[in-house]
Amino acid sequence: MVSTQGPQQCSAERRLQELGIQLPVPPTPFGSYVETVQTGNLLHFSGMLPVVDHIPKYVGRVGKELDAEAGRNAAYTAALSLLAAAKEHLGSLDRVTRVVRLGVFIATSGDLFDQPRVADGAPDLFRDVFGVEKTAVRLVIGVASLPLGMPIELEVIFEIAE
Amino acid sequence: MVSTQGPQQCSAERRLQELGIQLPVPPTPFGSYVETVQTGNLLHFSGMLPVVDHIPKYVGRVGKELDAEAGRNAAYTAALSLLAAAKEHLGSLDRVTRVVRLGVFIATSGDLFDQPRVADGAPDLFRDVFGVEKTAVRLVIGVASLPLGMPIELEVIFEIAE
Amino acid sequence: MVSTQGPQQCSAERRLQELGIQLPVPPTPFGSYVETVQTGNLLHFSGMLPVVDHIPKYVGRVGKELDAEAGRNAAYTAALSLLAAAKEHLGSLDRVTRVVRLGVFIATSGDLFDQPRVADGAPDLFRDVFGVEKTAVRLVIGVASLPLGMPIELEVIFEIAE
Repeated sequence: MVSTQGPQQCSAERRLQELGIQLPVPPTPFGSYVETVQTGNLLHFSGMLPVVDHIPKYVGRVGKELDAEAGRNAAYTAALSLLAAAKEHLGSLDRVTRVVRLGVFIATSGDLFDQPRVADGAPDLFRDVFGVEKTAVRLVIGVASLPLGMPIELEVIFEIAE
Repeated sequence: MVSTQGPQQCSAERRLQELGIQLPVPPTPFGSYVETVQTGNLLHFSGMLPVVDHIPKYVGRVGKELDAEAGRNAAYTAALSLLAAAKEHLGSLDRVTRVVRLGVFIATSGDLFDQPRVADGAPDLFRDVFGVEKTAVRLVIGVASLPLGMPIELEVIFEIAE
Repeated sequence: MVSTQGPQQCSAERRLQELGIQLPVPPTPFGSYVETVQTGNLLHFSGMLPVVDHIPKYVGRVGKELDAEAGRNAAYTAALSLLAAAKEHLGSLDRVTRVVRLGVFIATSGDLFDQPRVADGAPDLFRDVFGVEKTAVRLVIGVASLPLGMPIELEVIFEIAE
């Protein structure tokens, strides 16, 4: 293949393949909610947790039971789960035209000052898959606790093509 | 009346009546903000608190001064207040086409692992009123404190018909 | 000048001048994100912090290392930074048709009940610049910690004219 430009180069689905990333089973709710809601060309996601097969993969607070590296990995795991939910809704990740907003909530004992590095675990995956030109705005917050004792929760909005 | 289907069956206003739910007086601001802002066909709400007549109905943290059941009731009270604000803005709740996003912030001492059950107090009301097909995505977060010491704050977006 | 009404009276740029407010240097990211993303006629901002020249101007928690007045000033500083980011994206603040949503996250030791007054530091600036008729909905939350130990983070959405 010799194409040197064009949409194929930015294909999120192709990048996933090139990176050898296998999407996990899409997440399923722990309560009265759904994982995705589309309104117009915006796709809203439920708070994404570092869950694999409906079981928390990471439990604890960053800076207390977990170190920053584990927090970063938890953010990556939650972001993978989000991509799986997106693919289930959209059919193809190539329909994502922009990662609009990324909220990163980190459960912490209150003395974590290294939040940006922990949080980067999620957007670094999105950058690898969607390209740097689709980078989102970001909110990072250290909170008291997250559902089921997990260390990270992501809240994301995608802009999508019709 | 013998209609067996159609919009009347999904009328949120009729369901409110059937459920015997009386909406409270709409909330009024505690500071420099308004309760609702519409942009396009999205209706954004201010953080909704478990307030009745501008007075906090619940004060304390879930898992410390309040148990999970009280937290659940506080979420329900805040959700009722939100419906009152929505009706004031829209005229009729029948204009709500989707509950897009529900953020549930729970003041907690940090050791609350049962957040999904507490949070369900809000979406369970929305499901009863709007129907399960309009269920929102959800974010649940345990936080250090909320305005005036209240245990629950909801942040909601509705999609509405013109 | 004798005009007694019209768009000029509501010019945000003119109000900035009249108020003698000099916008700071626009903020730059601390991690893998951008400061603004526009989707349709909504402008989303990254979490805005009380930063001047990429250096935290306030560090500490409100109610512990900082009092409510310092918290209020930090909210004002973050709001100024947001206006600078908005102007960089839009060219002119006169394109802002509505402040849709203002989230105010306050780092606190957990016993802060005076959150609305702290939070008002941000919307009071927006009111002075954009006028009271463009006031946003608001969410105020007391959290465990914020990036780099700062006391305030704002999350804002503007509606803008094309």
